[in-house]
Amino acid sequence: MTRPTEEPDIDTRPWCRDHRGRDYSFNDFLKQVESFHGYSAPGVVIGAKMVDIAMKRMPSGVLFDAICESSKCLPDAVQLLTPCTSGNGWLRVVPLGRYALTLYDKQTGQGLRVYLDPARTDPFPETRYWFFGVKPKRKDKSDLLIQEIHLAQDRLYGVQKVRVKPEFLSKEPSAPRAICPECGEAYPAGHGPTCRGCRLEASYFFLQEKTK
Amino acid sequence: MTRPTEEPDIDTRPWCRDHRGRDYSFNDFLKQVESFHGYSAPGVVIGAKMVDIAMKRMPSGVLFDAICESSKCLPDAVQLLTPCTSGNGWLRVVPLGRYALTLYDKQTGQGLRVYLDPARTDPFPETRYWFFGVKPKRKDKSDLLIQEIHLAQDRLYGVQKVRVKPEFLSKEPSAPRAICPECGEAYPAGHGPTCRGCRLEASYFFLQEKTK
Repeated sequence: MTRPTEEPDIDTRPWCRDHRGRDYSFNDFLKQVESFHGYSAPGVVIGAKMVDIAMKRMPSGVLFDAICESSKCLPDAVQLLTPCTSGNGWLRVVPLGRYALTLYDKQTGQGLRVYLDPARTDPFPETRYWFFGVKPKRKDKSDLLIQEIHLAQDRLYGVQKVRVKPEFLSKEPSAPRAICPECGEAYPAGHGPTCRGCRLEASYFFLQEKTK
Repeated sequence: MTRPTEEPDIDTRPWCRDHRGRDYSFNDFLKQVESFHGYSAPGVVIGAKMVDIAMKRMPSGVLFDAICESSKCLPDAVQLLTPCTSGNGWLRVVPLGRYALTLYDKQTGQGLRVYLDPARTDPFPETRYWFFGVKPKRKDKSDLLIQEIHLAQDRLYGVQKVRVKPEFLSKEPSAPRAICPECGEAYPAGHGPTCRGCRLEASYFFLQEKTK
């Protein structure tokens, strides 16, 4: 008599591939999302498919930068699968509120923009509800949503060829720093006679005087 | 006759601890930085010590959010060591150009701000040169800089108690989306009659019409 074996995953096709060439099954990628993002957010799972679509169409060996047009979830998909992070300057997040990302050759600006296309969500009602925010988030439905995203594969997304303007291709050079006469901290001298923090701070983050 | 063994690391004291309680030796953390950030950037190594200082002073069990006052390197230190990422909304990057980060209780706003203090860099010339950007980056000096950062331990940093204003504590609620009449993509309805992308795009990222 043989022991019953565990049932294999229904679908072990890779969901996405990272820049090192590692393929992730859908379930493996969910675990990565939980670990980095804190929970298996549908937006990161969708974002990963978008990155995957763009990266597979980029000519091999091209050094690319990334733009996310939403600060929600997409930056984490980019950070999990590409060399671009929000701290190394290769990922730019611009909060336009559109569910789109672009990977582009950092020399020429030629790239691919992938977006979640509302017109393609009709056959996928849970995704549509989630995307349009017309129903309150329901925990009991989140499995259904994740399954639907999986089922849809690459059918939710549009792809466009784009060329990023030259002014976005050059890096801001490291600027010399000055000491701010108000806070005593260093800041890019080009920002003016005091640092942006001191100019904004009274109306910004902190409620009370900072205490050492 | 015994084979010569590899020389052990001179200093295996932990450089930093992540939010799961895992300690990283200095060399182990350098490897993490190379893997995530692309190269062992001094700014991420410094940022990790800053996160470590703040996190160790936070009351245990507090759910915290993070603010980085520079987009350079610091966000990656936060993302490597805390649950806060740029895609999950728990990390806010505000490009004030100051080398400072804050971790704060997301309920009360009470937190700790850690900054690289120019006044404390005097005994550490390589760090001072790097921080003030007064010398061009020299590859042959980067080992010396990394060693000096290691040697300095926590002596480069100032710590302040802060309280973040209530308006930064509440999350932006998910807004219903509308279809932009210009691009046909979805965007937060509250942004106006067309999406921010279409209002900005002519003068923004892309040089030419997007082609499908």
